[in-house]
Amino acid sequence: MAKLNVTQKLIKSHLLEGKMEPGNEIGIKIDQALLQDATGTLVQLELEAMGLKKAQTEVAVQYVDHNLLQTDYKNADDHLFLHSAAQRFGIWYSRPGNGVSHPVHMQRFGKPGKTMVGSDSHTPAGGSLGMLAIGTGGLDVAAAIAGQPYYVKMPQVMGVKLTGKLPDWVSAKDIILEMLRRYDVKGGVGKVIEYYGEGLKQLSAMDRHVIANMGAELGATTTVFPSDEETKRFLKAQKREEDWTELIADEGCEYDLQDEIILDELIPLIAKPTSPGNVVPVREVEGREISQVVIGSSANPGLRDFWIAGAIVEDKAVNNDVSFDINPTSRQMIQNMIENRAFANLIKAGARFHQSGCMGCIGMGEAPASDTISLRTMPRNFPDRSGTKDDNVYLCSPETAAASALTGKITDPRDLEKLYGMKYPKFEYPEIEIINTEMLVAPPEDGTDIKLKKGPNIATLPEIKAIKDEYKVPVLLKMGDNISTDEILKAGAEVLPFRSNLPEISKFSYSVIDESFYDRAMEARDEYGGHVVVARDNYAQGSSREHAALAPKYLGQVAVIGNSYARIAWQNLVNFGILPLEFTNKEDYDKIEQGDIIILKNFKDDVRENNPVKVTIHKEGGEDVEIETTHSMSERQVNILLKGGIINEFKERLEEQNLKA
Amino acid sequence: MAKLNVTQKLIKSHLLEGKMEPGNEIGIKIDQALLQDATGTLVQLELEAMGLKKAQTEVAVQYVDHNLLQTDYKNADDHLFLHSAAQRFGIWYSRPGNGVSHPVHMQRFGKPGKTMVGSDSHTPAGGSLGMLAIGTGGLDVAAAIAGQPYYVKMPQVMGVKLTGKLPDWVSAKDIILEMLRRYDVKGGVGKVIEYYGEGLKQLSAMDRHVIANMGAELGATTTVFPSDEETKRFLKAQKREEDWTELIADEGCEYDLQDEIILDELIPLIAKPTSPGNVVPVREVEGREISQVVIGSSANPGLRDFWIAGAIVEDKAVNNDVSFDINPTSRQMIQNMIENRAFANLIKAGARFHQSGCMGCIGMGEAPASDTISLRTMPRNFPDRSGTKDDNVYLCSPETAAASALTGKITDPRDLEKLYGMKYPKFEYPEIEIINTEMLVAPPEDGTDIKLKKGPNIATLPEIKAIKDEYKVPVLLKMGDNISTDEILKAGAEVLPFRSNLPEISKFSYSVIDESFYDRAMEARDEYGGHVVVARDNYAQGSSREHAALAPKYLGQVAVIGNSYARIAWQNLVNFGILPLEFTNKEDYDKIEQGDIIILKNFKDDVRENNPVKVTIHKEGGEDVEIETTHSMSERQVNILLKGGIINEFKERLEEQNLKA
Repeated sequence: MAKLNVTQKLIKSHLLEGKMEPGNEIGIKIDQALLQDATGTLVQLELEAMGLKKAQTEVAVQYVDHNLLQTDYKNADDHLFLHSAAQRFGIWYSRPGNGVSHPVHMQRFGKPGKTMVGSDSHTPAGGSLGMLAIGTGGLDVAAAIAGQPYYVKMPQVMGVKLTGKLPDWVSAKDIILEMLRRYDVKGGVGKVIEYYGEGLKQLSAMDRHVIANMGAELGATTTVFPSDEETKRFLKAQKREEDWTELIADEGCEYDLQDEIILDELIPLIAKPTSPGNVVPVREVEGREISQVVIGSSANPGLRDFWIAGAIVEDKAVNNDVSFDINPTSRQMIQNMIENRAFANLIKAGARFHQSGCMGCIGMGEAPASDTISLRTMPRNFPDRSGTKDDNVYLCSPETAAASALTGKITDPRDLEKLYGMKYPKFEYPEIEIINTEMLVAPPEDGTDIKLKKGPNIATLPEIKAIKDEYKVPVLLKMGDNISTDEILKAGAEVLPFRSNLPEISKFSYSVIDESFYDRAMEARDEYGGHVVVARDNYAQGSSREHAALAPKYLGQVAVIGNSYARIAWQNLVNFGILPLEFTNKEDYDKIEQGDIIILKNFKDDVRENNPVKVTIHKEGGEDVEIETTHSMSERQVNILLKGGIINEFKERLEEQNLKA
Repeated sequence: MAKLNVTQKLIKSHLLEGKMEPGNEIGIKIDQALLQDATGTLVQLELEAMGLKKAQTEVAVQYVDHNLLQTDYKNADDHLFLHSAAQRFGIWYSRPGNGVSHPVHMQRFGKPGKTMVGSDSHTPAGGSLGMLAIGTGGLDVAAAIAGQPYYVKMPQVMGVKLTGKLPDWVSAKDIILEMLRRYDVKGGVGKVIEYYGEGLKQLSAMDRHVIANMGAELGATTTVFPSDEETKRFLKAQKREEDWTELIADEGCEYDLQDEIILDELIPLIAKPTSPGNVVPVREVEGREISQVVIGSSANPGLRDFWIAGAIVEDKAVNNDVSFDINPTSRQMIQNMIENRAFANLIKAGARFHQSGCMGCIGMGEAPASDTISLRTMPRNFPDRSGTKDDNVYLCSPETAAASALTGKITDPRDLEKLYGMKYPKFEYPEIEIINTEMLVAPPEDGTDIKLKKGPNIATLPEIKAIKDEYKVPVLLKMGDNISTDEILKAGAEVLPFRSNLPEISKFSYSVIDESFYDRAMEARDEYGGHVVVARDNYAQGSSREHAALAPKYLGQVAVIGNSYARIAWQNLVNFGILPLEFTNKEDYDKIEQGDIIILKNFKDDVRENNPVKVTIHKEGGEDVEIETTHSMSERQVNILLKGGIINEFKERLEEQNLKA
């Protein structure tokens, strides 16, 4: 029998379709699902539209950790909606302020040997416990909750051997920063990073969480750690020892790719603005003045992380010019921080404690002052993500962050020995942590009678009809190359609040390109029953947001005709029932003008059989022109499209599987 | 010698000008000044414009407690600016997250027998320690900091005798709610409320803070308590026993008005939406479902208030449908809450802890869900103040709030005895509190060399020139009756961020009435050197915001011609150098049209000598019309006006007094 690494074992034990060969599409069974609130509202609306009876995963949890500021009714309404939807669909509900999804999930629900999908890019944090945990789009998570397989290309597995021992003042964050220094933000694409070796012994489960979580910044499919004695100790401290199973790589197993980190050689590292891959030694930038330090986030969520910051600032006061912001991971974490004095030490030294949640990590408050440096233990420092334009955010370990808070300058924590005569504080894990589950609401056995609570800004998804045999619809927009999803449906403070309100958010469709689009589309929907748009190369590049397909569909978009499509957005078009046609002859692009009427007649068989799809261009007062188009959909995708999209497809499938309410 | 009450003693010992007869204007010496960040930026810019060398008050403190969310760079930039300005002008700086101004000031700086002005309406909270503490406009506070007297009409003193003993489950908030039930939100106008009697013994200094703070809701000038043995105990617990002096009313003293509250007869009370004066017994509204409970704010800031909420929810969990939000008063309060287990009790039961600051009390986050009830221990429930339109905010004691959080319904806390077999928990004050001063930054001895840190949104006030002898300026706007300051300069999220940026905020001048105003005013400023506007009765009614005069002045407004003016806004016009003229014959209003040119010639002597001011109306292509106007300014005010406003006046005065940098 083949010798397998941990990743291969996880996949093999869940494989439903496909071959485990890198690059080949596989379908795997999903055991757990993780939702956060920013993406979760749409997922719950999709579950409603599918008519799901009850979640089919072993565990699904709806967390509320992103939108906690509540500057108007919308966030609070979302919370009530998510609570009711979780109860309705058999999903646990982690109430606002309970904590950041990834560490809470790890502490309360994570299980070695299980698979998980999550509608959050840092879902790979689950890999710290020997899980295969993948971040993905909302529809994929909805599908998994509805008991459907998750489809992904079989990744390459990169084995990273950890040897030796971490020096004092160097910790887990420096390991993942070292990986980012080596591979940058695209180095992990198409790969699972699997850590192994003697060096692991020194890394607590929460240290591994830091590395797995921020592994997302490598672009990796996910990160995997074995489940070993440390995993057992962690679960025991969480009073869940019974959930432990061993999961380690077979001796002599192989990896598709290999690397090694000699821990003894690591030094404190830091990611400069404006990319997590922009890593240099702290020494290289030391002495620069700072205005803010933020400690917390799912990329440094552990009790140790806060404790060591507290131990460093104990009986001192942070620099007068530094805002020392602390985002406690969870309520359970706060209770344990009270117990081990970390909380009092931090408060005494000058900390501003915020709610348990993502907060500044996703730009919800904590924006730094203009033209000043902010040091953060968070995973990302993309431009403007902090909320401040042209910000200067650096990413580092809690040790570096706390040392710099004291001095007011970027400081290598090793200098604390000479600056304050300090020895590296060593954390002792409590045998048992204080456990807090008061804000985790279990779903009822049968939730089918529970009514969804929808505030004025939460709108049920409209029913989408199957594709018809004939369309005669106007060309509402003729665009050029490289149209981005930001141009199709812009993001930002004006638009985001309507993510749960399709009729409202649809008003912003293509508004960046043409402010009259919405009004013209509504007219065309009434008069012609829909519209098409024309583009050239690489249509819908950029962010993967589903609304860039969902909103045009709501306005009646039948088809896009273009040369080529960005991959994810193209999948979204199909999933939401918009026909992505490709010009057979690229010069036909010149034959269509905005305002022309497009006629599609008896085309469904051509789509099904992959024949050329004939498109008639009717010009007012001119002669009709006929052109040929084609498409790149698989048989499975054609089926989805013709039904009007994947929600209709799921509806049918749940009906067949007797999973409908 | 006359027998004096506490209020009279405080005023007498600080009287600089005027007679202590109710209704008569008096000028008093100010010992302390309190600034918060929302109003403080303008105050600091005014101090800069005056050229002040150093604060002349015994203590002035700049707090940062309002704008803590930092969703973009502006708040953080304000914090850096306020810090630098505090250092520059000799003002203490309480850093963001250190806590809510009023209780922090009371704990660290408040002194019996002293006077204080503050640019926050809840400044009267200082009365809890036997101070005369008055909330007022920013310019008054700037003047006090510059060592100038504070002018106010001598108030009536209402003595409220407290007799008997509070029943279990009834506390200080119920006393002030009883006052609001009796007198409603205007019942205190022109009055100081002075509490006395045996019942005081039962009220801790922080209980008195609750009553003095929320006394602002009665419309009172301020609230005063004696300084007695309890005041001494409080200051001792703050390690400031040496700051105590006794200050009690003379036996047999008189009050202008009298009332009495028999404490034994009080029951739990609650203010219904949407006024703090809308008070009923909790029994009358019990059983209504709630979605949120918020505990904290300067109207219930005490250790006891959090402790009792913690004691009520100890070892229980709050209702699943209730967001249980806690705003800890200060970092010092958090440390003491950790010590007495209140913090752990609240967290364990499900609390969402927020930053130390005002937060939801001034609509910074914590907005409740639509169409749901929010119970708060805060002082105000005006419509939409929570951030949610058509909100349902009720105001109550921590006892009522905590009891309701457990049941999920408005609950009379006395029912906890039968619901949970609970006895009324009795708080024991610690002899000495944990003291935290790490985030209070003292000013340097000489700050004249310190540079103000101004982010891109903070603009120095422009220099304002003295009034000229002749103006020939266009009428840019002709308005009707009752124009509000909201129409002159609207509030709201679009405008407020520019409160420290006069050139930017000026763009919104009169934009509610005429969007072209700003452009036309800038043209007129270039071409004619200014403009006038015309109104009828009650010009500039509503909010007292100074920007409604400052912004038009910046755009070159020379005069307003109208029938009558709202009192505070009229003072603001004079203070910022805009001539408030009144039609001698009201029908002359009809003689002026928008677009006419107004000529004012050699008018300064007429203004000075209170002669009619002649106004020539030049009509394009028509004949000039002459009308007569007058004004209501005092001699002092005329001087201010002709100098171009009070900042110029202060500049001169500080020069004379050798207080300029």
